[in-house]
Amino acid sequence: MAQFSAACPLPTVTGETVLLAHGGGGKLTHQLIEKLFLPLFASSGLEARHDGAVIQLDAGRLAFSTDSYVVQPLFFPGGNIGDLAVNGTVNDLAMCGARPVCLSAGFILEEGLPVGQLRTVAASMRRAADRAGAALVTGDTKVVDRGKGDGIFINTAGIGLVETDLEIRPSSVASGDAVIVSGDLGAHGVAILSVREGLEFETVIQSDTAPLWESVRALLQAGIEIHCLRDLTRGGLASSLNEIAEAARVGVSIDEAVIPVTDPVRGACEILGLDPLYVANEGRFIAFVPDRDGDRTVELLRGFPVCSSATRIGRVEQAPAGLVMLRSRIGGHRVLDMLSGEQLPRIC
Amino acid sequence: MAQFSAACPLPTVTGETVLLAHGGGGKLTHQLIEKLFLPLFASSGLEARHDGAVIQLDAGRLAFSTDSYVVQPLFFPGGNIGDLAVNGTVNDLAMCGARPVCLSAGFILEEGLPVGQLRTVAASMRRAADRAGAALVTGDTKVVDRGKGDGIFINTAGIGLVETDLEIRPSSVASGDAVIVSGDLGAHGVAILSVREGLEFETVIQSDTAPLWESVRALLQAGIEIHCLRDLTRGGLASSLNEIAEAARVGVSIDEAVIPVTDPVRGACEILGLDPLYVANEGRFIAFVPDRDGDRTVELLRGFPVCSSATRIGRVEQAPAGLVMLRSRIGGHRVLDMLSGEQLPRIC
Repeated sequence: MAQFSAACPLPTVTGETVLLAHGGGGKLTHQLIEKLFLPLFASSGLEARHDGAVIQLDAGRLAFSTDSYVVQPLFFPGGNIGDLAVNGTVNDLAMCGARPVCLSAGFILEEGLPVGQLRTVAASMRRAADRAGAALVTGDTKVVDRGKGDGIFINTAGIGLVETDLEIRPSSVASGDAVIVSGDLGAHGVAILSVREGLEFETVIQSDTAPLWESVRALLQAGIEIHCLRDLTRGGLASSLNEIAEAARVGVSIDEAVIPVTDPVRGACEILGLDPLYVANEGRFIAFVPDRDGDRTVELLRGFPVCSSATRIGRVEQAPAGLVMLRSRIGGHRVLDMLSGEQLPRIC
Repeated sequence: MAQFSAACPLPTVTGETVLLAHGGGGKLTHQLIEKLFLPLFASSGLEARHDGAVIQLDAGRLAFSTDSYVVQPLFFPGGNIGDLAVNGTVNDLAMCGARPVCLSAGFILEEGLPVGQLRTVAASMRRAADRAGAALVTGDTKVVDRGKGDGIFINTAGIGLVETDLEIRPSSVASGDAVIVSGDLGAHGVAILSVREGLEFETVIQSDTAPLWESVRALLQAGIEIHCLRDLTRGGLASSLNEIAEAARVGVSIDEAVIPVTDPVRGACEILGLDPLYVANEGRFIAFVPDRDGDRTVELLRGFPVCSSATRIGRVEQAPAGLVMLRSRIGGHRVLDMLSGEQLPRIC
């Protein structure tokens, strides 16, 4: 942090609320950066107080991804918008087979936001970044007038180093591939909705928000020939499978009976009228690997707490191209379509 | 673009309005990507329809930067929020001495936004990216309920390749350096405010939004020993000079009489009660270079239309550290402080 002159003490920003001037580029913006963001995000990049961060990298393949976060409420069981914003971009990089290296953070704040809330969220971002081994190196803050935003919106972008020669992408998916889900589904969406609707279940259902790079790296290091990875966020398992089936021009068949969903989440979904296959997750992914690597992939994933219920749920078929077929619990088959309409707005 | 089955024609998205479901991760999100963003932003990165883009890069120094844009109105003389969002991040990279390579785009849309407006903005982003030689490679769209956003917010992040061995940053600024401004000040802020307030001046004042990398590259290629660059956005020239004076622990003295401001902007500022030294610009920067390079820097910059009124406006002094001194038109001296309070909210 810069040294402040004792003759001109700046007031602490905690306990105040965000004003339009905090986004104006003048003294209050400067104060927010110096007093709140820099102490939390301090790193070689941010310390330069420059328009961007400069990073030395070796030659190689970089992954680059971005996501904005507009979740409501900002705080929920298991996390807040800050964790989510860091884990989400870290996971997008991991899905490219990339180790997360550095992140940017863009805040759009609503006038009147308690600065304490912003501090809590920013501190969570720092912890999540540390946990993922990534640094928050550059950022930006804008403020919009009351009623033109909703507390805090966050965008993160991230750069990762691809740590494999594999081409991990939908077009690498091949007929016969095993489809593996990394853990039980639906916890994030149910955690958000239960707070939003003021529902209380016997067990507090916590968001599954978590970084996934360590588990992906374990697969790469073990020599698993990963064809494609996709984290299961908005639209849930069903939408992700459909996106990949369409992009890869393959069919996917999955078996409902083996898809892991915990009893509390299943119960909550029944009460809320939700299908867990469409509910958002923030710490779950699917992996497409050759059939021969399927069992070992499951075994490796289960070594990580976040993936302890990893399961092989289906396989890739040559046809019908672009469709996902679900074998239901009672043995029938039906097309599992992409999410249609809006099940849970602003889940992430 | 993916091929759509003739049996299942998707409706065009133009003419519709944005629904919450466009941000839900299901069919409408998919349609927005396939029908609107992909055709406009098509590039090797986006074509992969993956969680992130993968880019091959040689070893070297990368610049990484981000900015969010919340400007109101979305459309203004000389540009719209789309141009601004691309040029702004391109310029942040240029200020690090970096050639812009790739950009991400994160949209936060308000339910009810006419899709046609989004298409116009996205098309402007593509044109601005082309003009800057950068590719839009990855993106994200979220939708917030009516009254929780304001039409369109955009975040862009960018990766650039640093094309110099110089350390272009505040701490490289040295006593004796020439301070050069790249062009006339205040046009962007006045353009926005005149629309917002419904004011009409004799001349329509257009925003100065423009990419600046070409002019920075010309300085690097000519061997100018650039010490620091800063684009003059929120808070204007005065705030940027103060930031650098504080970060570099130097004094800066500038001469008001030579600071370029066009007559229409000066007139509008007088009517609006604004000081052009505090008004935001989106295509202007200051350069700190050794005194011996000052005249050549001005000459080189003037070769670019966007920098045709580049001027040497002052110099760096050893003391008083952290302060900017202005020699006024009438010959007196005063401290030029950082922007205090909020002059023009949501200018970018």
